[in-house]
Amino acid sequence: MSAPLRLGIAGLGTVGIGVVKIIQKHADLIAARSGRAITVTAVSARDRLKNRDADLSAYEWVADPVELAKRDDVDLYVELIGGESGVARESVEAALRAGKDVVTANKALLAMHGQSLSELAEAEGRVIRFEAAVAGGIPVIKTMTESLAGNRLERVMGVMNGTCNYILTRMESAGLPYEAVFEEARQLGYLEADPTLDVGGIDASHKLAILSSIAFGTQVDFSAVEIEGIERVSIDDIRRAADMGYRIKLLGVAQMTARGLEQRMSPCLVPAESPIGQLQGGTNMVVVEGDSVGQIVLRGAGAGEGPTASAVMSDIVELARGVRVPVFGQPATGLKKALPARTAVPAAYYLRLALLDKPGALAKVASVLGDAGISIHRMRQYDHEDGPAPVLIVTHKTTPDAIDHAIEMLPKTGVIAEDPVELRIEEV
Amino acid sequence: MSAPLRLGIAGLGTVGIGVVKIIQKHADLIAARSGRAITVTAVSARDRLKNRDADLSAYEWVADPVELAKRDDVDLYVELIGGESGVARESVEAALRAGKDVVTANKALLAMHGQSLSELAEAEGRVIRFEAAVAGGIPVIKTMTESLAGNRLERVMGVMNGTCNYILTRMESAGLPYEAVFEEARQLGYLEADPTLDVGGIDASHKLAILSSIAFGTQVDFSAVEIEGIERVSIDDIRRAADMGYRIKLLGVAQMTARGLEQRMSPCLVPAESPIGQLQGGTNMVVVEGDSVGQIVLRGAGAGEGPTASAVMSDIVELARGVRVPVFGQPATGLKKALPARTAVPAAYYLRLALLDKPGALAKVASVLGDAGISIHRMRQYDHEDGPAPVLIVTHKTTPDAIDHAIEMLPKTGVIAEDPVELRIEEV
Repeated sequence: MSAPLRLGIAGLGTVGIGVVKIIQKHADLIAARSGRAITVTAVSARDRLKNRDADLSAYEWVADPVELAKRDDVDLYVELIGGESGVARESVEAALRAGKDVVTANKALLAMHGQSLSELAEAEGRVIRFEAAVAGGIPVIKTMTESLAGNRLERVMGVMNGTCNYILTRMESAGLPYEAVFEEARQLGYLEADPTLDVGGIDASHKLAILSSIAFGTQVDFSAVEIEGIERVSIDDIRRAADMGYRIKLLGVAQMTARGLEQRMSPCLVPAESPIGQLQGGTNMVVVEGDSVGQIVLRGAGAGEGPTASAVMSDIVELARGVRVPVFGQPATGLKKALPARTAVPAAYYLRLALLDKPGALAKVASVLGDAGISIHRMRQYDHEDGPAPVLIVTHKTTPDAIDHAIEMLPKTGVIAEDPVELRIEEV
Repeated sequence: MSAPLRLGIAGLGTVGIGVVKIIQKHADLIAARSGRAITVTAVSARDRLKNRDADLSAYEWVADPVELAKRDDVDLYVELIGGESGVARESVEAALRAGKDVVTANKALLAMHGQSLSELAEAEGRVIRFEAAVAGGIPVIKTMTESLAGNRLERVMGVMNGTCNYILTRMESAGLPYEAVFEEARQLGYLEADPTLDVGGIDASHKLAILSSIAFGTQVDFSAVEIEGIERVSIDDIRRAADMGYRIKLLGVAQMTARGLEQRMSPCLVPAESPIGQLQGGTNMVVVEGDSVGQIVLRGAGAGEGPTASAVMSDIVELARGVRVPVFGQPATGLKKALPARTAVPAAYYLRLALLDKPGALAKVASVLGDAGISIHRMRQYDHEDGPAPVLIVTHKTTPDAIDHAIEMLPKTGVIAEDPVELRIEEV
């Protein structure tokens, strides 16, 4: 058996402590699988005195993660601090420059600086592994970089923020408005300190940008993701969608088209009985489509101590076995700059209008849609006591441009009481 | 970039030709991902003159796979001949002895001789990779040996024979009896030359035995799998199960218990709305449960040229990258002999009885179940014109022993017209 692999772990939150617990609990199992023991030399975190759910007494405490990353008695630096810059980034760079591989769960860091970090890693002959950065315990990074290496990938999509999926699922099951469930989620501790990262779709978009890079061999480009969060999803839309056999999910979709790379994160309608439609609560799902393999669906817990620590451990065991796969699946210097494209792939759309009680109102709406080249697949007008009438329209496949044009023209008819709501119906 | 990896491919059926086509079509993509070119030196198959859907003119033809496996200008031997013995086994052994790694899709070979082959591979310092042997394009081997390496695995289960799932799905959707759909499947070419391999559950059990070995660190032991095929599943059972919200699937389940390793392959009821219940046609699904990760669900095409060739390519790229993971996830010499255990984990059961029209008949049945310690969760008696009355019973959780005892006692009541049908309801 080879010499032990000695870790330096920075960041002792839920995930860091989860990793320590697995290393302690399954030492023999992991040694058998890795071909060598995995040990912890030293750890680092902001607050040494905080009470943590693991025995850290055998590990040296190092106040500065950058110092930890550079130590001679650390073979592998495990960065679980988080954040796209500051000490997380500095310590990862320091580790690479000191000739150490890096394992991280830091999606923001990779989404913002993945290209420069992977170039640095290659220049130093090291790698960065980050299975835990996307979809928690689901092995999506390994699947895309390794298992699907014989495929030209065509589309990758997924539900990758458990908090948003919890909120949307709970709104439907409890019949509660967004604001009420948001407050519940906050009290349950499901939300990031800055909740916009979750409900604004930022966190999920970091993940999507990373997957796009691997899928299409392009430099990670978070700034090109079209992002819409779930803040505007109303309980009305969830109910109306359910009436027609759909569920609303915060769905990320990346695909390479003739016009360029489309990356978007937005609330979409999906069939209620589809695998994505069935996803409840904090569970994540990633769907990858390749020219040979067809469609692969991966499902599991997207967050939490155990699942995320499991993903970090898979990277640690991989490096203990001496396996070194290029950071984004091929040499970083060979990754092309992606040409970002606004979404142009046609889809059906869901429109919700509040129609004033005027003669000819519906005809005016139909005429705007017709003029925009949009044909109607289904339409429902709901009962209403007084005030505007709720009207739901599901279009046939049309382009986002046509929908945008119609949305712009509808208020000019004078028969619409509120801004129309439009949601894309994604084929999954 | 390193020197090309030179393949010798034996077996040019659907999968072999699929691999050749990917290597030709995606040469650049694969070279970028592997860090080196992947080339084919020579090929071998039974019939040189057969018309095949790929240009093989650039490759040398070698009549004997064993000769191909030993050639100095072959770095990696790809065995796609199939079969548990004969030339498939001989050529794999020859390749390992000649110091070459092996990639294979041969589930029977691994299920029957996995232990001796992996010991041979280790003695020679080589590896055997076999992602395509289980569940086609689904990356289950890599997920279990690598992604879940930090977990103590608790249960692995799956629907791993597309033909059986096609037959069961089609029986339900078309309302056709088993024999009619079996004949359809034969005419569509979905069945193996010996159909017992499919419908008898043998093929799926080969796969389950391989997954058990990886999951529990035990020597692969196909002979210990309790196997029941789908031949006895009737359209009546499918309909009755559907009435109660279930579907019938040929489900493999392996779990390590205090009594030993339980491995069973049998038609089971699963909730219709569960991920496994939703599986239609030839699609496969594998569910793996670990102590940290929770439940991971993997879904995709379980057979066919593209998906299976995609899995073979993932192994080839892995070896081209210089990655060598132990055959069953840890050194073969460290794998323990499993203590096989007959299924004892309790479950609910579905019972279908044909009850004679006699006073007190139902009371006698209930009494037998009660005496066996089985309590009834739901019971339905169906309308019947004349003849025996169909009676369905769903039990509360009970043991297989209790069910076996009840099944033995029921005919002795004198109120049962046919042998009772019992199916396990698996919690998925």
